[in-house]
Amino acid sequence: MAKQKNIGVGVIGFGTIGTGVVRVLRDHAADIEARIGARLKLRRVADLDTKTDRGVRLPAGTLIDDAAALIDDPSVDVVVELIGGIEPARRFMQTAIRAGKSVVTANKALLSRHGLELAAMAEKEGVTLGFEASVGGGIPILRVIREALVGDRHLDVYGIVNGTANYILSQMAEGAGEFSEVLAKAQAMGLAEADPTFDIDGTDSLHKLVVLVAMAFGKKIDPARVHMEGISNISGADIEYAHEFGYTIKLLASARITDAGVEARVHPSMVPDTHLLSKVSGPFNAICLRSRALGTSIYYGQGAGMMPTATAVVADIADAARAMLSGSAAQPAYGRPATSIKSARVLPMKELSHEHYVRLSVADKPGVLAKIAEILGRQGIGIATVAQHERAKRGAVPVVIRTHKAKEGGLEKALARIRKLDSCRAAPNVIRVEEALGEAD
Amino acid sequence: MAKQKNIGVGVIGFGTIGTGVVRVLRDHAADIEARIGARLKLRRVADLDTKTDRGVRLPAGTLIDDAAALIDDPSVDVVVELIGGIEPARRFMQTAIRAGKSVVTANKALLSRHGLELAAMAEKEGVTLGFEASVGGGIPILRVIREALVGDRHLDVYGIVNGTANYILSQMAEGAGEFSEVLAKAQAMGLAEADPTFDIDGTDSLHKLVVLVAMAFGKKIDPARVHMEGISNISGADIEYAHEFGYTIKLLASARITDAGVEARVHPSMVPDTHLLSKVSGPFNAICLRSRALGTSIYYGQGAGMMPTATAVVADIADAARAMLSGSAAQPAYGRPATSIKSARVLPMKELSHEHYVRLSVADKPGVLAKIAEILGRQGIGIATVAQHERAKRGAVPVVIRTHKAKEGGLEKALARIRKLDSCRAAPNVIRVEEALGEAD
Repeated sequence: MAKQKNIGVGVIGFGTIGTGVVRVLRDHAADIEARIGARLKLRRVADLDTKTDRGVRLPAGTLIDDAAALIDDPSVDVVVELIGGIEPARRFMQTAIRAGKSVVTANKALLSRHGLELAAMAEKEGVTLGFEASVGGGIPILRVIREALVGDRHLDVYGIVNGTANYILSQMAEGAGEFSEVLAKAQAMGLAEADPTFDIDGTDSLHKLVVLVAMAFGKKIDPARVHMEGISNISGADIEYAHEFGYTIKLLASARITDAGVEARVHPSMVPDTHLLSKVSGPFNAICLRSRALGTSIYYGQGAGMMPTATAVVADIADAARAMLSGSAAQPAYGRPATSIKSARVLPMKELSHEHYVRLSVADKPGVLAKIAEILGRQGIGIATVAQHERAKRGAVPVVIRTHKAKEGGLEKALARIRKLDSCRAAPNVIRVEEALGEAD
Repeated sequence: MAKQKNIGVGVIGFGTIGTGVVRVLRDHAADIEARIGARLKLRRVADLDTKTDRGVRLPAGTLIDDAAALIDDPSVDVVVELIGGIEPARRFMQTAIRAGKSVVTANKALLSRHGLELAAMAEKEGVTLGFEASVGGGIPILRVIREALVGDRHLDVYGIVNGTANYILSQMAEGAGEFSEVLAKAQAMGLAEADPTFDIDGTDSLHKLVVLVAMAFGKKIDPARVHMEGISNISGADIEYAHEFGYTIKLLASARITDAGVEARVHPSMVPDTHLLSKVSGPFNAICLRSRALGTSIYYGQGAGMMPTATAVVADIADAARAMLSGSAAQPAYGRPATSIKSARVLPMKELSHEHYVRLSVADKPGVLAKIAEILGRQGIGIATVAQHERAKRGAVPVVIRTHKAKEGGLEKALARIRKLDSCRAAPNVIRVEEALGEAD
């Protein structure tokens, strides 16, 4: 056994997650020491705000307002970046890596843009870069792909990776109100941020998908090329129709590798009620992998929150510590050399084929459905089922169509024509039906 | 980057899993090499049967009938034990470890009895012992506990860890017949072994639970002290009642750490239909962890089968290879020194409290229910619900009672008295109701 050693930790950003990291390091110090053979010592915490009481006590002199001084401190071996955003987070990480320090981060926005560049730098300097906390909070999905499934090839990765959006959809499904009401309640309860844009519009899910694609497929994709839709157009009516057909609406981030490139998309989906993803509710996350040898595997847990996320950060610190203690080379952050991860084409959404749920609001008069069916038919889109069992409201009736598998491009053209019909009273609402998920199990 | 190196692999036991390992090493050689910086080379396969065609081709001279010669072979760095059973598997592993070779195994029967002894030996010799494939097949649950959740403390571990039993219960729930019919069909389809005793009676689940307890809690428990029941007494009627009450019957292995010792048990349970475990069907496995910081996390996938299990074996080989390549000390198999894992008391089942489903067959005459309620009441057992809505058959009616939380010992005494009643027509069937699982989420 290695004799007692200390690994110095510096945390930049003393917000929710930073506070959680301080607590985990304090509460579980002995457990961690027993497991890795060294004590993780919190040396410095840097935050511009050194006044607010975070409910945890730090030894005098630990909390400073100067991140550069923290990075410079020779007693700090591992720098934890928890301030979020692109700059100055990126610059802090670069400085730390160049100073030969290992870096741990939860910053998915930064990683989705500069993750591979930072990983290449860390590999060049022989330090560890860890970012388990960036995807799925406390769910160790990145580590599982990188280490546990090293002998397999991954074909699909998809799941629920934003807890705020999932909480809102879950509450709507339980009848708590329409989107804007539920969002307001979630904000009042602190379950959604004051500016929830990235959670609601899919951006946060997309950032995480980019990280997952690099880890699972060894491919770099341009987030700007990925089709993204948020949940703000989902109505209580959609949720009810979904329920009636045996589905639950979830915001999914999905990617598949093909010979032609990477299929990647973020949008609300109808998940069959037989699939485990349909049962993931509230702030929980779940990520599914489909792999050549293993088949489908699913990883479920709290995707956000102080303590779950802090756990993932501390596991990465422990990894960096293990590499330092063993004197061995740090493992590459993406499980293979970052320079070997090349750009891949993102397949245009319009070339992909899906089954669709389309909700229309049309005039309650004869011939309308025939006209719509004709327009869809001209794009080669077959109708699987039609539901129209509500009474007319102000002369308009909701018509819900479920299509057979059809090209997105064709549907788009058909919907543009349908919108121009005199009998069409509102913009059609489209949700993809993920029927194939059920088959994957 | 390390320059091209080879790590020699020897596989003892050329059965289903052995064949899968040979296939994964062959099919994913380049991927694995890209990730770990070395080629895993299959040097020797040892099996007493060198004639049967396993559908994979080995280079001439690779397949031998002498395990000792394989272990002795200087080109073999990692020995994979896949013959199962206690001896000679244990002796082969000891010999390999003493010869300074890393060892990988899927042998849960051996691990449940001698895992800590083998781990201590491996730590002393500085070699890697890997056994991810022993629990949950391809689900990387042991690695997750050991590495990903290193900064957390685990409170509960429970789940579905036997795919054969789960397949049978799932088929019964789908109306495929009673236990013995479904078992016979599963055997005919190769989904249950010719001698399925260990899968059906809970032994296999118990072996895995012992490994999980050591990994999650750092405690050694005596399997002989763990309450174990199999699934052969579950009837279609039980499954229907469960469904009616909103539950699904699953064979669960569960453990909880308390100040007084470890609660550990293997038996059929009624799982609320709102819990993800209720949706785990067919041969799939799922393991739930409840941890102090992370809360509940769940790991789902194929718990058996050639390729999933082989994936876990190969991940362990890759781990051993990484340790050899980095020249660093092997990580301890249980995530902490094996000698630090001490025996813990298994709390006697009769001291534990659960909610119970009790199915009785009683004479269809007045006063019987009052008598039963009185006997239960004397043991302090409250009745939550009673169901009795079938017609009498040959003078006996089924009565289904759901109790409030009550001591197992008290229920046992009450049932012994109830069995002696003239009006009791068959042995009562008891299934624990895992109501608290729903709350864990």
